[in-house]
Amino acid sequence: MPRHVVNVSVTPRGSMEILSQREVQQLSEAGSGSTYQLFRQCALAILNTGARVDNAKTILEAYADFEVHIHQLDRGVSLELRNAPADAFVDGQMISSTREMLFSALRDIVYTESELRNQRVDLSTSNGITDYVFHLLRNARTLTPGVEPRMVVCWGGHSINTEEYKYTKKVGHELGLRNMDICTGCGPGVMKGPMKGATIAHAKQRVIDGRYLGLTEPGIIAAEAPNPIVNELVILPDIEKRLEAFVRVGHGIIIFPGGVGTAEEFLYLLGILLHPDNSELPFPLILTGPQESAGYLQQLHEFVGATLGSQAQARYEIIIEDPVLVARKMKQGLAEVERFRRERSDAFHFNWLLKIEEGFQRPFDPTHENMANLELRRSTPPHELAANLRRAFSGIVAGNVKDKGIRLIEQYGPYEIHGDPEIMQPLEALLTAFVEQQRMKLPNGSAYQPSYRVVS
Amino acid sequence: MPRHVVNVSVTPRGSMEILSQREVQQLSEAGSGSTYQLFRQCALAILNTGARVDNAKTILEAYADFEVHIHQLDRGVSLELRNAPADAFVDGQMISSTREMLFSALRDIVYTESELRNQRVDLSTSNGITDYVFHLLRNARTLTPGVEPRMVVCWGGHSINTEEYKYTKKVGHELGLRNMDICTGCGPGVMKGPMKGATIAHAKQRVIDGRYLGLTEPGIIAAEAPNPIVNELVILPDIEKRLEAFVRVGHGIIIFPGGVGTAEEFLYLLGILLHPDNSELPFPLILTGPQESAGYLQQLHEFVGATLGSQAQARYEIIIEDPVLVARKMKQGLAEVERFRRERSDAFHFNWLLKIEEGFQRPFDPTHENMANLELRRSTPPHELAANLRRAFSGIVAGNVKDKGIRLIEQYGPYEIHGDPEIMQPLEALLTAFVEQQRMKLPNGSAYQPSYRVVS
Amino acid sequence: MPRHVVNVSVTPRGSMEILSQREVQQLSEAGSGSTYQLFRQCALAILNTGARVDNAKTILEAYADFEVHIHQLDRGVSLELRNAPADAFVDGQMISSTREMLFSALRDIVYTESELRNQRVDLSTSNGITDYVFHLLRNARTLTPGVEPRMVVCWGGHSINTEEYKYTKKVGHELGLRNMDICTGCGPGVMKGPMKGATIAHAKQRVIDGRYLGLTEPGIIAAEAPNPIVNELVILPDIEKRLEAFVRVGHGIIIFPGGVGTAEEFLYLLGILLHPDNSELPFPLILTGPQESAGYLQQLHEFVGATLGSQAQARYEIIIEDPVLVARKMKQGLAEVERFRRERSDAFHFNWLLKIEEGFQRPFDPTHENMANLELRRSTPPHELAANLRRAFSGIVAGNVKDKGIRLIEQYGPYEIHGDPEIMQPLEALLTAFVEQQRMKLPNGSAYQPSYRVVS
Amino acid sequence: MPRHVVNVSVTPRGSMEILSQREVQQLSEAGSGSTYQLFRQCALAILNTGARVDNAKTILEAYADFEVHIHQLDRGVSLELRNAPADAFVDGQMISSTREMLFSALRDIVYTESELRNQRVDLSTSNGITDYVFHLLRNARTLTPGVEPRMVVCWGGHSINTEEYKYTKKVGHELGLRNMDICTGCGPGVMKGPMKGATIAHAKQRVIDGRYLGLTEPGIIAAEAPNPIVNELVILPDIEKRLEAFVRVGHGIIIFPGGVGTAEEFLYLLGILLHPDNSELPFPLILTGPQESAGYLQQLHEFVGATLGSQAQARYEIIIEDPVLVARKMKQGLAEVERFRRERSDAFHFNWLLKIEEGFQRPFDPTHENMANLELRRSTPPHELAANLRRAFSGIVAGNVKDKGIRLIEQYGPYEIHGDPEIMQPLEALLTAFVEQQRMKLPNGSAYQPSYRVVS
Repeated sequence: MPRHVVNVSVTPRGSMEILSQREVQQLSEAGSGSTYQLFRQCALAILNTGARVDNAKTILEAYADFEVHIHQLDRGVSLELRNAPADAFVDGQMISSTREMLFSALRDIVYTESELRNQRVDLSTSNGITDYVFHLLRNARTLTPGVEPRMVVCWGGHSINTEEYKYTKKVGHELGLRNMDICTGCGPGVMKGPMKGATIAHAKQRVIDGRYLGLTEPGIIAAEAPNPIVNELVILPDIEKRLEAFVRVGHGIIIFPGGVGTAEEFLYLLGILLHPDNSELPFPLILTGPQESAGYLQQLHEFVGATLGSQAQARYEIIIEDPVLVARKMKQGLAEVERFRRERSDAFHFNWLLKIEEGFQRPFDPTHENMANLELRRSTPPHELAANLRRAFSGIVAGNVKDKGIRLIEQYGPYEIHGDPEIMQPLEALLTAFVEQQRMKLPNGSAYQPSYRVVS
Repeated sequence: MPRHVVNVSVTPRGSMEILSQREVQQLSEAGSGSTYQLFRQCALAILNTGARVDNAKTILEAYADFEVHIHQLDRGVSLELRNAPADAFVDGQMISSTREMLFSALRDIVYTESELRNQRVDLSTSNGITDYVFHLLRNARTLTPGVEPRMVVCWGGHSINTEEYKYTKKVGHELGLRNMDICTGCGPGVMKGPMKGATIAHAKQRVIDGRYLGLTEPGIIAAEAPNPIVNELVILPDIEKRLEAFVRVGHGIIIFPGGVGTAEEFLYLLGILLHPDNSELPFPLILTGPQESAGYLQQLHEFVGATLGSQAQARYEIIIEDPVLVARKMKQGLAEVERFRRERSDAFHFNWLLKIEEGFQRPFDPTHENMANLELRRSTPPHELAANLRRAFSGIVAGNVKDKGIRLIEQYGPYEIHGDPEIMQPLEALLTAFVEQQRMKLPNGSAYQPSYRVVS
Repeated sequence: MPRHVVNVSVTPRGSMEILSQREVQQLSEAGSGSTYQLFRQCALAILNTGARVDNAKTILEAYADFEVHIHQLDRGVSLELRNAPADAFVDGQMISSTREMLFSALRDIVYTESELRNQRVDLSTSNGITDYVFHLLRNARTLTPGVEPRMVVCWGGHSINTEEYKYTKKVGHELGLRNMDICTGCGPGVMKGPMKGATIAHAKQRVIDGRYLGLTEPGIIAAEAPNPIVNELVILPDIEKRLEAFVRVGHGIIIFPGGVGTAEEFLYLLGILLHPDNSELPFPLILTGPQESAGYLQQLHEFVGATLGSQAQARYEIIIEDPVLVARKMKQGLAEVERFRRERSDAFHFNWLLKIEEGFQRPFDPTHENMANLELRRSTPPHELAANLRRAFSGIVAGNVKDKGIRLIEQYGPYEIHGDPEIMQPLEALLTAFVEQQRMKLPNGSAYQPSYRVVS
Repeated sequence: MPRHVVNVSVTPRGSMEILSQREVQQLSEAGSGSTYQLFRQCALAILNTGARVDNAKTILEAYADFEVHIHQLDRGVSLELRNAPADAFVDGQMISSTREMLFSALRDIVYTESELRNQRVDLSTSNGITDYVFHLLRNARTLTPGVEPRMVVCWGGHSINTEEYKYTKKVGHELGLRNMDICTGCGPGVMKGPMKGATIAHAKQRVIDGRYLGLTEPGIIAAEAPNPIVNELVILPDIEKRLEAFVRVGHGIIIFPGGVGTAEEFLYLLGILLHPDNSELPFPLILTGPQESAGYLQQLHEFVGATLGSQAQARYEIIIEDPVLVARKMKQGLAEVERFRRERSDAFHFNWLLKIEEGFQRPFDPTHENMANLELRRSTPPHELAANLRRAFSGIVAGNVKDKGIRLIEQYGPYEIHGDPEIMQPLEALLTAFVEQQRMKLPNGSAYQPSYRVVS
């Protein structure tokens, strides 16, 4: 297949249009220094948004000679692209949405770097991290004041089966018919289906300002290039900031079937919602899927019941194969969110009142020591238990599927975890089920083996 | 299957909002009189736009007790619906696009009737008919002054195969990427594919005012309910007005594979373009299809060459399986149209300068007498020959597939047509090919037999 | 003073942009025929809007060779102006507001004529006249549905003193600060002051869609050229249509000091409001002026009390030198209007529910016979008495100041009026006061003498 | 006179709506600390915008108990006002433009302070200062990219005579008719006249996005409260930043008659334009006034000729009593600016290419030492001579009219200035003329005496 490439210069629209000469110079320096590779990789993924080949590696290899350079004009900034995929262009003009996303990447990756250098950000405190997430979102013009709550986050797997994918489209369609917006991780699968459904519904309802917000991070974007429906793209610096952005900018969350990643996100959210400070804060949370996924959702539900108890189960609702009901319940939930924020004079555009403990804002490194320090006991307060469960879950999965985790287990033997059997057994059952349902993919040829042992 | 129905009252937005009390009264009278059945049928078709069942008959039967009444409020007009299909509603609210189309139908059907009663329209002259078409389009707010030419009409079959359908989507996508709008007959098949492609392309290009104009007529709308992408719907009173609307409001036309109806439309357009008064008027016309349809298009082309000559062939271009080229050529053609209209101070929104002879504005009734009066000779001026060919074509097809035509043939024997063999043979060949390719559907069990004989 | 003139062609924006060729032709015929002089005169007045010389006669004489011609292009209509006042142009470009008003005149004068020819209008019934007024206003795009009532009509003299003029500006300012729009007769004096005040207030309140609606008629516009603040101009065909437009499109009325014309308008409105059908219809009506005009307003008030009684007095409020109170009361009144129209489902943009008897829709010709037929008795129902009082008032004034009236009196002696002294005496007192206050200007050198005698 | 006061809370619209909790806290701290008095004083001046009393001192005294407090809500910031002038409110609601300006003051004064604390700004270099000015203007949303150059700065006196004031209105009117925007120091006199004229002209031309940009600084705003036409208000931190903002954001400058301040501004601008780096940069500069001010302008012109030479005179044009010509010349000048910026790819919204030497960015303190160090010799390069002339002029005026200057002269005797007589004599003549024309007001009872002596 002959590869078509294009060399062009593009100038931004929107927030990057009015830069000072110093800002342009800083961008230019940052963009040609340490963050160059990161920016180049994201840019290439974005330029491939429309292409049929979705495999990140293939793309990176096919355009090994792709280059992107930041130039400083008196007028502002311009990007020079060399050997760029021709699919991103129409008669020599870059497609508008691609151009927007490209400058979103410039803004979020290079600008972020230059902000950090200017030391405006204090990442040493929990409040400082929240503030940083807020600044990134505001800088991306994601926060619009005064708009009633209607941003629904959809979580779930990127490689779900056809039935499940169709179901996400139907749910998105019903949400869109009721004038709700969609926020996802902006790749394929559950990241795309609800947006697609909502797009058609918004057209039917003549909603012309529908929002399709994609939140991603540099490690993910290359593998999961933003689908072209996304009309607002924000690249957060890492996974924890991205998760915080989801729960502060979304007004409600729907969880579709997914893999271990989705389960981890679910535990992350439960851990936050179970914090005593959040006990009165409304946060609509719905688990849903088609009939055939009922078993999977039931299993998750039982796991939560067995480990975190009915208090945790009360924070969400499970709805099987009923997109209309999902949309109606979510709509009711959003009305409740609006009422609450009005009452407390909180912003509609950012959930300041949600308490997120620092533990949720920092990455967890599953060393043997860190795993041994986890306490998985019924006596632990539920929100701490949820946090620890999430960490344990994350570590155990790493021990089974990730290079680093597998090597650690080979070297030091299984993790030792201090846990009550009433908690460890449901966890074990959940993991086994994930493997059976092919929702957790083990390395080629290996069989599932617990990567830990319980120390009571 | 339990049938869900809804009883509601709806009030209009847009052009029907500011009516005088007398106008409302006239609407109300017209709507409950002779045009009631027509309006009811169109309304029901529109309320089924989103439904999965596309069969007109099924719908009409399923909602036999559906009623629609026009009520007069001091404030204006309102529609009362009884036993309306529930699919058109979300939580008791009518979907916006459905509401728009419903009032488009009220406007075009009932208002039209009341205009005719007021005798504002002079349908006895060619100019009067054109004026009427203009008034209907203006009343529907379809004519926006000052916008550069970018409305591309797509003609072709409503029941094409999957390959052909996919191809129309691709062409629509390329048109949309270049900021062109789409106008079709607003049903399925070629009426939907280009709109669907353009919708996605417009979203990518951040075009928020993309137009998807559907032109239909009462006899067609029930069988071919408007697809939900259509954001402007105009119901013209009959087939000839609809054809005139297409060629006066469209700035260029693309013809995709279709059946005998498409061939007739093609001949209609050629007949107009070959008129000496139109010889300098630019009108981009492209025939296109996927590779597998190349034979079909080639056959049409040869037929035109054999009958109307190279002068006729010079008015269009054939492009096989190259959506990008189609879009580029159309874009160039539109630039030419713009240049011409500026030069002549003609409106962008209505092609006043296009000469349409009265023969094209009146229906052709294929009686034996009318058919015998047709002259299909090489000596006839090309534009008259094209007009007669269209009529002959229409009559012959009627003799094969339409109830009335078949009965006429049974009663009086085959039509006698006065034609040169150089013209009649290619015509015969074309018809045979249409039957072989299943583009002309004969009544059950019958074999194709010429319904005419040539009298030299 | 050298007179600067310009020759140009101008094309319209707005409602005249999309005309059919037939409409353009009709315009062109009408505009060069009987209505030419009327249109030319209005056009000239409008082109002088910005000039310092405000005297109509001077203008007409200064530009005796001014011509305006309607041309038909394929594209639509254009106006050719010859020897037009240069003040209407900036560097050869016509000022936008002037161009708008010029095409308003074309629309209202020539189009009106052509509509009448098409016999769409039935002026033989009261409803038909109302319908006609509605059509003219809608055609002028004056009726915008859904906007809450906020159009305040200001009536009063065109040649008031400086104190009174300043006061109208203050009242307009307070109305504008509360987001109300202004409608006047669009000339100088009370027609200008409130608009000027509201303009500044709207700017302060960042209201960018403030409306300054001028309603005029051909006989008035030349003498009272529209002030340049007017951003919507409608030229009604005659005085009665103009009065009806005021009371149907305005949501409340403020009457400032004025001459006999203002008093007549006041009686017109009272006559309508006293009709039993209008007894529950809210219609805010305020008489106001500066301290020094208190006597004048008091006199009007007493006259109403003595003739029409306290029931009539209850339909309005008098406020002396308190612009803030005027604006607050009007605001309250508009809220009442809104409530009432919602309740009755009446349009906000046109007061359909207001009953106007045919007598108010037809001109009154003050012949001796017509005057003798008036009944001015306390036993007459108040709304008929008000109607008759208005007519008598109009006739008596004509007998004193208008050419035709004076000649009639000279020829046939004073009018004989059948009236009760309880009514005729206050009327006499009011007229005398008007003369003393120089609000009724008698022909040079003449002294005021009653032009009638009472026959009991 | 009873003083009406109001106690209210107001929340912002626009750029202050989306603040982080940390930003609100910083605002709140800064606003209650050292900058409180400054902010309170500006707020009070703004709340008096509409009032008739224009004297700053009177206002400050009349509302001695006025307080303004910044409160932190979860939702954002709110301002609590106590004992605020009632004139700023309509029925208890703050007038929109007043609210806008109040939050402009909060943004520019308190936010500025908090930015400085965060040490984002480097005021030690010339580029750093320019950058700071840019940030302040961008933060105030004054910079809109892509708009063609049309911002005309008007400089001149705040207490000019009636003839001169009327003339500024006429010039503003002609500028507005040609779609130019106005930027001034936003007080009375020349700061108001052109805006008033342009407002009316913009209304005539249906320009609804006309800009009336006021640039002020804390020391000036209290004395010269922004006139209510201003629809964008920026409070720069000091006089030098304000001057730089004028010349970087304005596309051309018109100088009307004024006092010594205006003369200083003129010299400031000439000093910049004479810099060799700016020799090719187009910068339309027009001196204009009514006939009676011709002598004054001629004198300024001769002074420039005698001191800076014809090269300096070539950078501006003098037009006497011809508003149309002024507007046309300015329009031509702006076209030239646009061409130049396109050629150099410079922004339309900020004049990056204009070279301003650091000397112009720093205040000049007229001590005896600083005055003695000035070189006023024909041999000095013109742009340096202009800079020194501006300083000398400023110092000499201070020695005559300002407290500090007068005391310095009393204490140490007249300034010693090293200057050539060819320069000092015209300077002396200019100052004398200013005194005679009452454009320089000496302290009560004193006679003009040179506050310096020339040392050759």
